[in-house]
Parts: sequence; C-alpha cells; structure tokens
Amino acid sequence: MSAFPEVSKIKYEGPQSDNPLAFRWYNPDEVVAGKTMKEHLRFTVVYWHTFRGTGADPFGGATMCRPWDDGTESVENACNRARVAFEFFEKLDAPFYAFHDRDVAPEGANLAETNANFDAVAKVLKEQQDATGVKLLWGTANMFSNPRFMHGAATTCNVDVFTYAAAQVKKALEVTNELGGENYVFWGGREGYQCLYNTDMKRELDHLGRFFHMAVDYAKEIGFTGQFLIEPKPKEPTKHQYDSDAAACLNFLRAYDLTDHFKLNIETNHATLAGHEMMHELEYAGMQGMLGSIDANTGDLLLGWDTDQFATNYYLTTQIMLVLLKYGLSPGGVNFDAKVRRESFEPIDLFYAHIGSMDAFARGLKIAAKMIDEGGLSKLVDQRYSSWDGDLGKKIEAGQVSFTDLEKIMLEKGDVEANTSGRQELMENIFNRYLDLA
Amino acid sequence: MSAFPEVSKIKYEGPQSDNPLAFRWYNPDEVVAGKTMKEHLRFTVVYWHTFRGTGADPFGGATMCRPWDDGTESVENACNRARVAFEFFEKLDAPFYAFHDRDVAPEGANLAETNANFDAVAKVLKEQQDATGVKLLWGTANMFSNPRFMHGAATTCNVDVFTYAAAQVKKALEVTNELGGENYVFWGGREGYQCLYNTDMKRELDHLGRFFHMAVDYAKEIGFTGQFLIEPKPKEPTKHQYDSDAAACLNFLRAYDLTDHFKLNIETNHATLAGHEMMHELEYAGMQGMLGSIDANTGDLLLGWDTDQFATNYYLTTQIMLVLLKYGLSPGGVNFDAKVRRESFEPIDLFYAHIGSMDAFARGLKIAAKMIDEGGLSKLVDQRYSSWDGDLGKKIEAGQVSFTDLEKIMLEKGDVEANTSGRQELMENIFNRYLDLA
Amino acid sequence: MSAFPEVSKIKYEGPQSDNPLAFRWYNPDEVVAGKTMKEHLRFTVVYWHTFRGTGADPFGGATMCRPWDDGTESVENACNRARVAFEFFEKLDAPFYAFHDRDVAPEGANLAETNANFDAVAKVLKEQQDATGVKLLWGTANMFSNPRFMHGAATTCNVDVFTYAAAQVKKALEVTNELGGENYVFWGGREGYQCLYNTDMKRELDHLGRFFHMAVDYAKEIGFTGQFLIEPKPKEPTKHQYDSDAAACLNFLRAYDLTDHFKLNIETNHATLAGHEMMHELEYAGMQGMLGSIDANTGDLLLGWDTDQFATNYYLTTQIMLVLLKYGLSPGGVNFDAKVRRESFEPIDLFYAHIGSMDAFARGLKIAAKMIDEGGLSKLVDQRYSSWDGDLGKKIEAGQVSFTDLEKIMLEKGDVEANTSGRQELMENIFNRYLDLA
Amino acid sequence: MSAFPEVSKIKYEGPQSDNPLAFRWYNPDEVVAGKTMKEHLRFTVVYWHTFRGTGADPFGGATMCRPWDDGTESVENACNRARVAFEFFEKLDAPFYAFHDRDVAPEGANLAETNANFDAVAKVLKEQQDATGVKLLWGTANMFSNPRFMHGAATTCNVDVFTYAAAQVKKALEVTNELGGENYVFWGGREGYQCLYNTDMKRELDHLGRFFHMAVDYAKEIGFTGQFLIEPKPKEPTKHQYDSDAAACLNFLRAYDLTDHFKLNIETNHATLAGHEMMHELEYAGMQGMLGSIDANTGDLLLGWDTDQFATNYYLTTQIMLVLLKYGLSPGGVNFDAKVRRESFEPIDLFYAHIGSMDAFARGLKIAAKMIDEGGLSKLVDQRYSSWDGDLGKKIEAGQVSFTDLEKIMLEKGDVEANTSGRQELMENIFNRYLDLA
Repeated sequence: MSAFPEVSKIKYEGPQSDNPLAFRWYNPDEVVAGKTMKEHLRFTVVYWHTFRGTGADPFGGATMCRPWDDGTESVENACNRARVAFEFFEKLDAPFYAFHDRDVAPEGANLAETNANFDAVAKVLKEQQDATGVKLLWGTANMFSNPRFMHGAATTCNVDVFTYAAAQVKKALEVTNELGGENYVFWGGREGYQCLYNTDMKRELDHLGRFFHMAVDYAKEIGFTGQFLIEPKPKEPTKHQYDSDAAACLNFLRAYDLTDHFKLNIETNHATLAGHEMMHELEYAGMQGMLGSIDANTGDLLLGWDTDQFATNYYLTTQIMLVLLKYGLSPGGVNFDAKVRRESFEPIDLFYAHIGSMDAFARGLKIAAKMIDEGGLSKLVDQRYSSWDGDLGKKIEAGQVSFTDLEKIMLEKGDVEANTSGRQELMENIFNRYLDLA
Repeated sequence: MSAFPEVSKIKYEGPQSDNPLAFRWYNPDEVVAGKTMKEHLRFTVVYWHTFRGTGADPFGGATMCRPWDDGTESVENACNRARVAFEFFEKLDAPFYAFHDRDVAPEGANLAETNANFDAVAKVLKEQQDATGVKLLWGTANMFSNPRFMHGAATTCNVDVFTYAAAQVKKALEVTNELGGENYVFWGGREGYQCLYNTDMKRELDHLGRFFHMAVDYAKEIGFTGQFLIEPKPKEPTKHQYDSDAAACLNFLRAYDLTDHFKLNIETNHATLAGHEMMHELEYAGMQGMLGSIDANTGDLLLGWDTDQFATNYYLTTQIMLVLLKYGLSPGGVNFDAKVRRESFEPIDLFYAHIGSMDAFARGLKIAAKMIDEGGLSKLVDQRYSSWDGDLGKKIEAGQVSFTDLEKIMLEKGDVEANTSGRQELMENIFNRYLDLA
Repeated sequence: MSAFPEVSKIKYEGPQSDNPLAFRWYNPDEVVAGKTMKEHLRFTVVYWHTFRGTGADPFGGATMCRPWDDGTESVENACNRARVAFEFFEKLDAPFYAFHDRDVAPEGANLAETNANFDAVAKVLKEQQDATGVKLLWGTANMFSNPRFMHGAATTCNVDVFTYAAAQVKKALEVTNELGGENYVFWGGREGYQCLYNTDMKRELDHLGRFFHMAVDYAKEIGFTGQFLIEPKPKEPTKHQYDSDAAACLNFLRAYDLTDHFKLNIETNHATLAGHEMMHELEYAGMQGMLGSIDANTGDLLLGWDTDQFATNYYLTTQIMLVLLKYGLSPGGVNFDAKVRRESFEPIDLFYAHIGSMDAFARGLKIAAKMIDEGGLSKLVDQRYSSWDGDLGKKIEAGQVSFTDLEKIMLEKGDVEANTSGRQELMENIFNRYLDLA
Repeated sequence: MSAFPEVSKIKYEGPQSDNPLAFRWYNPDEVVAGKTMKEHLRFTVVYWHTFRGTGADPFGGATMCRPWDDGTESVENACNRARVAFEFFEKLDAPFYAFHDRDVAPEGANLAETNANFDAVAKVLKEQQDATGVKLLWGTANMFSNPRFMHGAATTCNVDVFTYAAAQVKKALEVTNELGGENYVFWGGREGYQCLYNTDMKRELDHLGRFFHMAVDYAKEIGFTGQFLIEPKPKEPTKHQYDSDAAACLNFLRAYDLTDHFKLNIETNHATLAGHEMMHELEYAGMQGMLGSIDANTGDLLLGWDTDQFATNYYLTTQIMLVLLKYGLSPGGVNFDAKVRRESFEPIDLFYAHIGSMDAFARGLKIAAKMIDEGGLSKLVDQRYSSWDGDLGKKIEAGQVSFTDLEKIMLEKGDVEANTSGRQELMENIFNRYLDLA
C-alpha cells in the first residue's frame, strides 16, 4: 500500500514547468563539469526531520499529519515507517538517506532490548536498500534526546553515561557498517556546557578525545572504512557546544591527534549561528583538507536558533557548489538536514520542500560550474594576488627571506607602491550575471 | 608643567569613600591570596585610547578636550604627549603601559624617517620609564590605520605591503626590546577579508604563518625574550578576522607549528563579539596552556561592534579573576584596552574611568580569592564529577578500556544510574553571596 | 501529605547566612522607601514553568522529577498538583501566583468538557487561595500550545480558530474574575507570522484589534475591573510576533484606540531579544503611563532564544527597581516567568531558584531606594539638563517659540556654547558604590 | 573638464552583456506594470557616501581616490565637487539626488557664514539641476557629525544646541524648497542615548515632538509642500536611537499628533539592525499608510553595524518591489544610501556599484510585476484567508458579534475544523520560479 498514492516519481520537466511536483533544474543524468548531477550532488534525505519530525516546538505540540504512523513506539510501527521512507526516497529520486539510531528504532527497556530493536529495523532497512538501490550516506547515534544525556554523552560528568554512550556508538558503528554506510557522523548534541560555574572543561574534553580514539579503534576492529565526520555547531541545546565551529573542531582534532581519522560535516544553519557564512566554513575546512560532507539547509539570520529550513536561495547554493566543485564532496553528500515548517503539516509538503531545495542546488551547481569554467571570478582573484607571483613573493613563500632582508628593500623604496581596488561590487555584479545566465 | 594640576596621586580610601578620585578597593600593597594586589593585577594603561583617542566615530568628528596636545603630527608634540602620559600613569599608580608604534610617534615621509621619529620618541619613553618606574607591558605595530594596509598587512594581496609590514614589525620589536617590554602583541587589524569572492584564504594564511616565523626568528636574533601574543577578534574592521576567537588562533598556531612561541591576549569585547563569554575564552586558552594576557574592557551585548568600554561589572571582573588566579597572568597584565565615551570628553573623565575599572578588578580579585579559598563553587564541581574518580573512570581516563569493555558493563547494567542535578541556580546564588560578603 | 517535607517555610536570616533555604535579603516586613518589601515587590510564582515545566527542549525529552505528579492529564491529577503548588507558594512566602488556563486544567474532548475541567480545578484554586491567603496576580489563556493555534489565535487565517479563541478568553476572563485576579494578560503566543509571502498582516492586525475590543466589552459585562496587560516579545515561536516590543504594542494600542484599557507587562528576556535593555522597555512604557507589570527573568545575551532564567544579577534587579520605584507597580507584580535549567531537575532546585531571585530583587530594591533617596544619579542628571530650566528652555517647552525666533538667537550667538561631559563612567562608578554599600 | 573621461553615458545593453559599464536590466523607458522603469524606480544618488565618503573607518583613515577634490573645506572645492556630482548623475542616468546640508557645503566660522556657504553651493546645485534635469529627491540637515551634537540635536540636554539645530533645519528647509526638493528627511543621527543613567527620556522626546511641530509650522510658512519623512534606525551611533524602527516612529508620531505631516523613509540596513526584514518594515509602514520612501542598500546580517552596502540580491530587490508596487512610492524614491567598500577606492568603482544595484532593482521590479500580474503568490494567500470571507468572518470584521456569540458557536461545534497547511516551502519554490523566468 502506498503512503503517497497521489505522487508519482518526480521527473525533470525543465525551468518553465509550473508543476510543483516536478524538477525544474535537477536532471540527474545531465552532465555538468564532467560528471552527472547525481554524482556531484549525492542528495540525501534525513530520517529524523522527514520521518520523525512532529512539528512540536518549545511553545506547542505536534502538528504533523503522517497517516502511516500509528503513533506508537513499537518495532512494527518503526519497520512500517521505514518502508514508507523508502517509498519517499524512491519517488523523490534521492540516492541516499541518513539516520540516527533512535530515529529508526525505539528504545527498549534496557540496552540489550534497544539493540535488538535496532537490529530488527536495520534488517528492514537493508531489505529496502537492496530493493531500491538507495544507499546509506551515514549513520550516527542520538546521544542527546534521552534524559540520561542531560549532562552530555562523552563529556558527561557521570561515568555511567559515558559508558552507555560508548556502547551505543559501538552498536551504531556496527549497523552503519552492515548497511554499507559511507560515513559515520558525530554531532555533539549535548557535548558542551550550560554554565561555566559547574563545569570542568578540560576534563570533559579529555574524555571526548578518549571517546573518539576508542571509536577509531573499534572501526578498525570491525573493518569499517567509512569516513568519520564531526559536525560543528556553536550553541543549542547547550549554551556552548564544544564543537562550536570548524576552527574549534580542527583545533580539537589537532590537539588530540585525530586529524587522520576525522573530517567535518558542515551545516549552513550552524555556520551562521556561529557568526560565519556557510561559504567561509566550507572554504576554511576545505583549504585544510578537512571538508567531508554538508548538511544542506538554511537558517533565518534574524532568528537566533536552528530553524533548519530547506535552502532555496540561489546565492547560497551557488556559493556552496563553488566550494564543493573545488574540493570535491564524495564520500560525503548534500544531506537535507532540514524540516518543513510546523504549519506545513501535510505529507505533500515534504515533497514540495525537497524538490525546491534539490532544484536550488542543481541550479547552484550549474551556475558555479559555468563561473569556474569561464573564470568569472577567478581571473580577478588571480590578478589581485599577481604581485606575489614575482621573484620576491616566491622567495617569501619559500621561506628564503628574513625581516632584515625585507626591511632593507623597504628602506630603499621608502613606502609601498599603490594598492589596487578590491572590486567587491564588480564581483557581486559578475556573480549576478552568472545567476541570470546559467 | 602639570597636565592634570587638579589631580593628586590617587589613593586608597576604602569602600565607604565618596571621593571620585580615590580608590575604594584597589589597595596596591594589600595582600590577597599570597600576593599583593599590584602583583596580581599588573594594571596597564593603553596609549592609543587614552592618549590618542579623539572621540571620532563613523558618524562624527573628534570631541576630546586634550589641552596638552597641539593637534600636530610633530615629533615634539609626540614627545610632550609622552611626558603627559607618564604623569597620568604615575598619578593613577598604574605600574605598566602599552603602545602601538604609531600611537607614540608620527609617520614620516618614508620608512627611514618614520623609524627615526619612533626612535626620538622612544628615547623620551625610556627616560620617563626610568624616572617613574612605570614599565612597558607590551609593544605592537599598528598595521591597520594607514591606508596602505587596506587589504591587510601580513595577509595582503600586495607583496610590497607585506614587505613594509615586515620592516615595521622588525622595528617595533627592536624598540619593545630596548624599552624592556615584557611581551609583544599581534592584533591582526586587517588580517582577514571583506568578501570571499576576491580572497585566496589559504595563500593569505600561509603568508601569515611565514610572517610569524620570521618574527620569532628575529626576536631570537636580537635577544628579545618577551612573550609573543596573538589577540583574537572575530570581525571589525574586516568582515572576518582570521584570528576570530581563541579556537581559531590555536588551530592556526598548531597548523603552522607556532605553539611554542605564542600565547593569547584575550579581550572581553572580542570574546563577546565572537559569541563567547570572556570566562569561556580565558578558560579555553588557559586549559591548553595558552593564556598569556588580557585586554580588560567590556562591550555592550546589545550592540554589534567593539565599544571598548571600561569594565565595571563585578560579575565580569570576578569571573575573570577566578580564571586568572587559576592559571596565572605574568608576564601578561590587566591591560585597559578601553576608551572613555565620546561624550566624556574632559581629561578628568580619564581618571574616573580608570579608577572605576581598577576598583572593579580589585574587588573581583577579592571575591574570587575568597571563593577559591573557601571552595565556594569548587566543592560542588568536585562532587559533580566524583563518579569519574572511581575505578572505571580512572581506567577510561588512562586509556585502558575499549568500546567492547564498556558495552559489556552497560549490557549488564541495562541502563545508567541516576544523574544528579546540575545545580546551576544554587551556584549562581552562591556567587551572589560571595559578591555580598567579600 | 507534604510534597516538600524536607523544606520548612523559608525565613529571612540576613546576608551572612549560608543556608541555601533561607532569604538573605528578602525580609517581607522590612520597610524600604515607605512601604514593606512585600508591598513593593508583589512576588508571584508562575504555574506554567514551576508546575508544568518538563525540562523538554527541541533536542530532548522531559527531565523534571516531580513525584507528586502522576503524569496523566486527569482532572484529579490537576487538582492534586494545585494543592502542591499552594504548599510551594506558602513555604516560599510568595503572596501571588499566575496561570494560563491550560496549565491548571487539562483540555477535554470538546470545549464544554474543557470548560468543565477548568471549573473543577478553579474550585480547588479558590479553596487554596482562601486557605492560604495567596492571591491571583493574573490569569491568561494559553492560545499557542494546542496545534489548532498553529496559524495564530486572534490573528489566525482560520475564522473557526478565532471563534474558539474568543470562547476561550471569555472563559478565562470569567475564572480570573471569580478568583479575584488583579490583572488579565495577553501574550500573543502565535500572533505573528512565519513568512511574509503567505501573510496578510493588515487583516490579521485588524482582527486582533477587534478581538481586544470584544475582551474589553466582555470584562465590562461581567464586572471584571482588573487591569488588561499586553506582553511584548519580538520572535519565538513565530518569526515575527506582532507585539514585538513596547513601541510596537503601544503603536497598535493607539492605532486601535485601546490605550485606555491596556497596559504592558514587560519581560527582561523579551526586551533583550528585541535588542533593548529591560530598563529601556520599562522606562519607555512608564514615561507613557503604560507600565503595568513585569515578568521577572533574564536571558543569556549570547543566546538567541528565550531562556527564561531566574534573574540573580544585581545590576539588572537594581535597574528594574529604579524604574518601578519611579512609576509604581501595583496592581502588577514581580512575576517569576522563569524556569529552572533542564539539568536542575530536582524539586529542591525550585526553591533555590526562587529564593535566589527573590533575594536579588530585594537587594535591588534596597540599592535603588538608597540611590533615589540620596540622589546618587539624579543630581547629575538634573545638572545635565539644567540649561533647559532657564527662560529659553521654558519657552521652547511651552511651545512659545518658532524656528525663526531660534534662528535669530543663534545667528547672534554664532555657535553653541560649550557642552559638558556626559559623565557615563562616573555614573557607573557611583552605581557600583551603591551596590557595595546598600 | 570631465572627471570621468573614460566613462560614457551608461546604456542598456540587455542581460547578456558583459560590459561592466552597461545596464543589463535597467531600461529607463521600458514599460512594466503600466509605467516606465524610470517612473517606478525614481533612482536617487546620495551625495554623502558617493561624493563625501572617504573610506575612513574606526580603525583606519581615508582611502578614496577622488582626483577632482582638492581636500580643502573651501566653498570653491565644494562648488567644483557639485559639478562633478552632476556629471556622475547624468552619466549614470539617475533622475534624482539627495543631500545633507553639510555634505554639499562646508561650515563657516559661525552660523551666518555657514549659511552663506550653503547658499553659494546651492546656487551651483540649482544651475546644475537646470542644466541636466536631475532633480532633488530630498534634502536634510546633518545634525550628528559636528561635535556640538554629541548629546543629540533636538533631544540634546543643552538648550543652545537645540536652538542651533532649529536654525539649521530652518535653513535646510529653505534650500530644499528653493531647489524643488520633493521631500524633507529627518534621520535622528544622535537623537537617542548612550546610557540610561544620565538620560531623561521623556523630556528629550517631548523636545523632539516640539521640534517637529516647529518644522511643520515653518514649512507651511514658506510654502514647502514636500513630504516630511522620518527614518528609523535602532542604534549606531547612539546605543539606542529613539526612532528605532517603524513601530517606534509611528508610536511617536501618534503620541505627538504628527501623523498627518510625516511618513517613513525605510532603509534595509536599518531594518535588519532592528531585527526585522526590509519587507516587514515596508509592509508595516505601508499598511498604515505611512510608507514614504526607501533608502536602498543592504547590510551584512552577520555584522552588527551599518555596512551600507549596495543591494544586489534579487530576493531582496524583488521583495522590496512587491511592496512598493502595492503601496506606491512617489514622491519618494529608491535612494542609494550605500557606499563602495573602503577597498573599492577608485572612481570607476562608483559606477560599478550603482549600475549593479540599479540593475538588481530593475530586475526585482520585473519579477515582482510578473508575480503580481499572474497572482503567483496572492492566489495562495487569498485561499489561506478564505474562511474569513464567509458570513461569520464578515460579521466579526464588521464588529457585529461578541465573545458570547462566538462562545455559543464553538460550544456547539465542540472544536475547530481542520487547519490547512501554510505552504511556506511551496511559496518559496514559486518565488524562485519567478526569479528564473522574469
């Protein structure tokens, strides 16, 4: 029985189409910059928002209408929901999905039961993957929803909770491995603090480092070769999340000797909550060889919490694709960590939301590819730095000169020669032109 | 001739005093936690705001009334101003001062002249230091005010500007060394970007790493043994400053192998612009052994720019002193990188402002010392983490257990034992009690 | 049977006390500025956070341990909870409480049942009020939690929902009246929008104006003479709340001719989310004769959502009391719209939290009263404006001069005479001195 | 002699053009929605940023290269600069300009001289207007740059400064009138406060109300029939600007009985600094009949100050044009209160910047017009509110029902009938489709 009988498989119909259930830009097999759109974009539907989101917020209860869900925490309901999810993935033509352990399967009375529940649902997921060809981009463990994690998981003050978290990640790694997950993600839900007065930050971070090393060791033990990812976020639910932004994550990974094992999963709404543009966080991670994957969404820059909206803004999607084309994305993906608004409570809204954002990324890809191909911005950038391509610049970059050498040169010159305009406005105009024409 | 004839040396008169030109809390020779207040606090007056601040802002011109300043950019005026500054330091009983090269001496027609001007003023500074006993906490080079630095100094796109900056820091290091400066600070005024479209972030950061290594080498060459400091700030004047917060600075220092040579100079207003509490940034740097010094000021958390106000809030000063008592401050200091409001344009306002903040830090020191001595907060913190002091906790911390070991334990237990309350509200009440009683 | 057997009635023990279950500053019968503390402060416990708060947040479930609550939505449980609440009010020595209709009683299968449930619980509330002497500061209707209000209540796009809301407020007014509530509050939970594309703002605001007039008419009809209050908040749960700040509320009240019937209930955390200081919003409302009551809490200025923390900061409580002493508070009160942190899940934390904030307001009252009595700040303010007390100033204020008159004066003078310093730093120091000495 | 010899009059060349000195979308005589683009958009160049902006910021000096400007404050230089400005207006094909009194002419030694200087330059402006056909959109008085206004102008604590301000506005009104200015604007540069401790807000606002009434009276006296405008801004340079947003301005205008004489000049960057979308502020003012004109720029939502960037974002320009097409703009205009970046210091950057933003508004106009014409969004909005078009809705809107009537209906129904989805995501997709196709 279909959960979405009124929806057929979403097809590409081109930019003019006014069919809200068609793609106007995402044309999976269209080749752009040497690869198909499908290969570039690796679109991923998230299980938590799309199949477990209720529409509840701090001021009100659930609104979502999900007729296939019986509202119980039974394994049977979980298995049925999984089948609906794959119908959605297929109709949407999404090649990947991603989950937390607790999204897909309910907790039991104790850890053993919980693990058994997870296994039961994982079996259905495996069947569905095989039947549909949809693959698992990544798995992760939800270590923030259950009240046991109120003080954190790996960074908790309660050694029992750390122990539980270790067991939980062990299991999540095993299931991710069995399902062929290409990555495993850590988002440190409550790894942070609410108040400095009661917190021993050093001890907590040491525990976190220890935890990650155990995960790396265990992955090796079971032959999991997927990429480990850490996801930066500055705040919410805690006042301060330890993985506050790309810089904080990388400093931590360097300090605890984990850079060989982890990359970053960068999210737009987390970037902006940290005061950075998404493009900044991507470029910052990418230039250090640490860009792994993206959580594709957007926030509302006038609101101070994680709104996790579907990204439809072409400026944003183009900026993202500019960086992804530069550094590559695989084995990561464009993961829709986004939720329909609380008031968009009908199942069909799930389709509208994903289609619109897939189109926006497809269009962003085309614009970015054309811009790169024609050197739309890069010609001006190269010009800007051209003084460094001369003899002196090369020597400085090679570490062959000292302050004394440079002082000598400047005492002779007396002062610097003219700067040139940064041309920011011109470059913004050029960006718009590509947006018009691609 | 005195610039402040109406002001005598500021004296301690005790909390009841209503003399606005007396200290109510700062009693230099009073011993707190084993050292005198003077030794703990190492108060430092900044030259730039206090003697070069004009009151101009983006919407209006200079307001400050400074009768001793003839308004010219002559070396003579600069030397005279330096003498006034030392009168101020002495009357305020401030043991240290700090400067940028361009605060104390004017630029000349070329670099050679500029250096000569700097030398001429440095001679006066040396005389004044000797005469008064006031010492130089740190020197630094202003590489952001002159238009030549519009695109940055060490991170400029113009190799000539990099060369100029190298020569300038070389000279500033020499003068700092001659004046016995105990530290040398880099605040990356325009080391960042306005726009990602025209920026090659990787190349710019590589240049910055190179620049710092040259500075380290040159310091060694001239026998400068002071501490190098980097000062985090997230934005302003650029859209994104590379040294955006402590984490970004430390990640950079680790990536470019500079951790042995640099520590951080943490500023309250920069911390909050980055979305962090001052106490967070201090603790974060301190726990990594990287806390060097502080810029003591405060921002207005409802405004989005660097207001550089004098800190008078006891909660803030107590939090700061809690961390400084834990990690130590020397050879750093409590450096008043703060300016009187544009409307507080009379010379006497400079005294009010410094006195009020010195008192607030002195009171913060007393409160923090009492809190530490009595274990006001730390007893509750120790209790909170006590489960880690057992056998399992110790083994985990020592790296002697694996995910498999921990899973075994938790499968047996079934679930975690109870968490305990975080007691944040109680701890806030205890904090207030110390504020009442210290 | 007592819900808090380990807690006796909280008593005043003075500032030195280290008993966390005693008042150190709140001494109900102590006279300050001509009235008892109890009369000034009119402390009010809120039912929603204190007795219905679960600790759930957008990332995790309920944490609160409330042994008296059986977790059902039965009327019996609601009545029992009400009795516990009054035990709490009494032990805390709080003279007032406040509620939403849906906090105190559960919804039934239809409106009639829901109203009957409300009546049943209201009967217990009445009994408890009579037995304890605790009074109702205000009642209100929760028109945001139930999913029917997803698009707003009075500003919904669905006329049925407006109708429901009207019926609900009618009932809430009746019950508030029966219980002797001294005020009735509107907080426009979802009166706003998520997205301008789908919103007809004008039509929605017209409906809101209509709704308020109906409320005024009905209050008259039933003889409710309490004060109507509107509570400003800028955002959350909606992207834009129509009652975004005091100015937006007052503009609305003026536009819809409602100023004779409503005043404002100002909340600290809402003020700061709107970019204003609490003191600003209070003064702004007060100077227009529109300050009605306060929601006493605090936010975290580095977080972008309503954290509703208990206020313990003396600067804040003193600033609030300065304005309340100026404009008066009755029939409003100091209403603790604040919740214990999610991790402070034990019942005893409710006591710690309220005691700490009651003390902070009591201390703020004493500091403010002394400051006003001695003219600590006001003398300097009067001086600052003294030029307006001359002949010209009086004429201008009386509307007796024109631009032409003033130009004539200034053409003769040529330019203005000297300004005087704003003395902000000195005033901050004076504020600290009162904080030390009161 | 031409100041821009290398630039010819900017022409429309169509979207494909890669000529950075051509319009790709702004085609002045093209008819859209019944009027020419020129009539709709009423583009206005501002004198202050474009001809007086220096590139100075709080951390550095002037950068702009303006060869025609001799750097003196002479009247001759001012007159020459005015001629260059008109060359720029003409080449850019901008039909309007706007100025502050102190932009166009320097202050003299006293008010009389200052007025004479202003007259001298106004004469040149008049000649140039006549010669070119470029018109004055509005004039205003700069009452924030000169230090005399440190405490405000109409809201100063110094009655002398109020007097000066009155004389200054009198003169600015006269000149604006002589030059045929179609509006007169008040932006309350320093009308606000830095600190509540030293401020008498009520007295200051009373003075402001008085000041505006004098302005209205004087305009009548001299026969100035242009529109008065107030420009909201929440902060900067003061901590709190009294005209903080549209709501605060309108509340003030209502309170002081000024609504018949004033409308609002809404600016994007000011809207976002106040926490509102530009579209919100426009719609809010428009629906109250108070939308007068716009300052067309954009801020950087991750920065907390007024960056005044040229708007090039099509989402923003389309949203603005949607509201302007609804409420009309004349006698207001699209006024480029925007400045080239400090690093875009060459004269040619002024052309790039204006051309890009004119194109972005022209494209926004076309998209908005098509969207309105086809009912792209409005059909869905009408559907959303359709329940109000029934009998009950009409009665409620007409004020013909009471709470009692509505309760009766709902008691019978029992609960509301179903809500419908808000369809936010679908509407965002539709918006993108128009952006693709218009």
